[in-house]
Amino acid sequence: MNTSFVPPRRILMGPGPSDVAPRVLEAMARPTIGHLDPQFVGLMDSIKLHLQRAFDTTYPLTMPVSGPGTVGMESCLVNLLEPDDVVVVCQNGVFGGRLKAMAERCGARVVHIQDEWGRAVSPKRLASALSANPMAAAVAFVHAETSTGALSDAQTLAGVAKEYDCLTIVDAVTSLGGSPLHVESWGLDAVYSGTQKCLSCTPGLSPLTMSPRARQVVERRRAPVQSWFMDVSLVTEYWGSGSTRSYHHTAPINALYGLHEALLMLHEEGLQAAWARHKRNHLALRAGLEALGLEFIVPASERLVQLNAVAVPEGVNEACVRARLLKEYNLEIGAGLGVLAGKVWRIGLMGYSSRPDNVMACLSALSRILADEGLANSVAEATKEAEHVLDTYESD
Amino acid sequence: MNTSFVPPRRILMGPGPSDVAPRVLEAMARPTIGHLDPQFVGLMDSIKLHLQRAFDTTYPLTMPVSGPGTVGMESCLVNLLEPDDVVVVCQNGVFGGRLKAMAERCGARVVHIQDEWGRAVSPKRLASALSANPMAAAVAFVHAETSTGALSDAQTLAGVAKEYDCLTIVDAVTSLGGSPLHVESWGLDAVYSGTQKCLSCTPGLSPLTMSPRARQVVERRRAPVQSWFMDVSLVTEYWGSGSTRSYHHTAPINALYGLHEALLMLHEEGLQAAWARHKRNHLALRAGLEALGLEFIVPASERLVQLNAVAVPEGVNEACVRARLLKEYNLEIGAGLGVLAGKVWRIGLMGYSSRPDNVMACLSALSRILADEGLANSVAEATKEAEHVLDTYESD
Repeated sequence: MNTSFVPPRRILMGPGPSDVAPRVLEAMARPTIGHLDPQFVGLMDSIKLHLQRAFDTTYPLTMPVSGPGTVGMESCLVNLLEPDDVVVVCQNGVFGGRLKAMAERCGARVVHIQDEWGRAVSPKRLASALSANPMAAAVAFVHAETSTGALSDAQTLAGVAKEYDCLTIVDAVTSLGGSPLHVESWGLDAVYSGTQKCLSCTPGLSPLTMSPRARQVVERRRAPVQSWFMDVSLVTEYWGSGSTRSYHHTAPINALYGLHEALLMLHEEGLQAAWARHKRNHLALRAGLEALGLEFIVPASERLVQLNAVAVPEGVNEACVRARLLKEYNLEIGAGLGVLAGKVWRIGLMGYSSRPDNVMACLSALSRILADEGLANSVAEATKEAEHVLDTYESD
Repeated sequence: MNTSFVPPRRILMGPGPSDVAPRVLEAMARPTIGHLDPQFVGLMDSIKLHLQRAFDTTYPLTMPVSGPGTVGMESCLVNLLEPDDVVVVCQNGVFGGRLKAMAERCGARVVHIQDEWGRAVSPKRLASALSANPMAAAVAFVHAETSTGALSDAQTLAGVAKEYDCLTIVDAVTSLGGSPLHVESWGLDAVYSGTQKCLSCTPGLSPLTMSPRARQVVERRRAPVQSWFMDVSLVTEYWGSGSTRSYHHTAPINALYGLHEALLMLHEEGLQAAWARHKRNHLALRAGLEALGLEFIVPASERLVQLNAVAVPEGVNEACVRARLLKEYNLEIGAGLGVLAGKVWRIGLMGYSSRPDNVMACLSALSRILADEGLANSVAEATKEAEHVLDTYESD
């Protein structure tokens, strides 16, 4: 097209990207300065500090990787795994499979544990895999599986890994900012996230943190890290303290303006308050969806609050419903991925998207469309249930 | 800092990032939509088309990689090189050295040719290296060396590589949009660039194009590409035609709004006109700098028009001059890198920064500061020379 691209105004309630806060968009449009500018170096320091708060850690190696969450994932694996290292990869959805594929490309020997899609990773199964593979160097799993809506118990899994003296590599793409995550007290060693989920920021950056123990493993490597761009020893020299920084690549300046603003907003709201907001809106949406007769595919105790995966009712053309939501209501929800393709809808309530008005807009639009499909749904009942939750919710 | 970051308004005349066009910043602040949204898919197609125009190629594999130019560089190498492949890397500055380091991390056997920093890569030296290494599979070099300001003859170098049946991997980070680049008619096989130089866009994306011949090499690989994120076979499925797209990562939506706007501006101006603009402003700056008594480190016939590397006059504290330019004039110029550290200034005139008013602002500020350092400089003479060039320039 030979004209400027003017996007429609959507409500993003899919698995990400979620709605970006207007303050973040404004920040991104500020004039670009140089990446060696003293003012920019100050911004980098502030971003690192804010990320430490968000991850709840004091790990000095905490910074945003200049690429999407997938680069954060690969950064953890290429730095911590060497050829022939044994790594246990727990898979309970699409992203566990990606961890496995990447670990294999590092030349690691992967012990692959499979849990049911839509369920948490089983600590018992992990323990028996580790007991059968005493040479394992690391365990990798997804904290919040965006493809299924399941939350795993990262603290318990990390405890099991520690018993077997393994590093813990954790995907926190969808959990950071949306539900409790205590990187340091839980003993997680390498954690990566994304900016386009619960941080209310645009996609393109991957917050990353590594424990001193993980850094030691990197320092003692026999083989060089196979990726020059992702070599954390080089990247941290760039993100290091002001006086000792050395050039590695050109940081995505304006994207970092946005991330800083998003992290500032999270700090202003407070981590606990942000987690409570995600939970409140989830419970409200849940009450409404259940009133519409929709069923969650994840057991209540293992459910994400930021991503609601519900089964598509029999006989309903799921793609058609999503297309109508987008066309008639400018509302985006997600389809199923992998083995869940065609079977579920994934309704996100992440970051700036996690708002009561979005809960109501979604319930209202969905119920009208389902009614057209011949399903007996009551929009009044659904919104009443949701309103009731919003009115009576008390945070933990 | 617990307040929003409000950057100062700089004039960016370093080696990049360069000034970002206000239209591009505005575009980046538009509301985020989903990366699977049909409207976004349309934008992706348009970006691919505009990039083909900018690269002057019809290669179907043409797209922006979701990471800085360094990721584009590594993407070319990890896809095209396999362990034990022989690759000739021509180095005449910092970035040739980076090509070498990355190729080594791919397990390739690197034949390393070194040319003088500040000079073009020598086709003769390449020919003799290839003649001595008949098993070489690829040749890699930098078209426009940002670290020295030297332009190499990519067409001739590619011709030599072709004689020896080698693929040509070319760094066009600083050349794309700033000086003639004809990817297809010159026979270049894998070319990557950056958005923060002559495209007037923010840093963070890496335009990439690969010839059908290069794709064939990727398809016939024995070993899998060591990087999952950079595997072009996976990435092109994501950037492929609308109906067959498959999820790979979440594209940096708003950064791509910006890139589209930047490419649209380039299309509106016209490639030839953009090249002529860069040349005109370079010649004007050159006349002024020479009137100030400064000397270019690159012979005139091998000089970049978008990056002017001049020797720091003896006895001048180069860092102090740059600091004053930044502090008193909000004007950023670049220092030397690698062996040129402390010895040169790199003055960029790239993209939106390549403007007559910037030429004048730089000459004026620099001459005043140099006068303070006791160098006899005449700002009037310098600006007169520059104005004369601007008035009389006729494009080729």
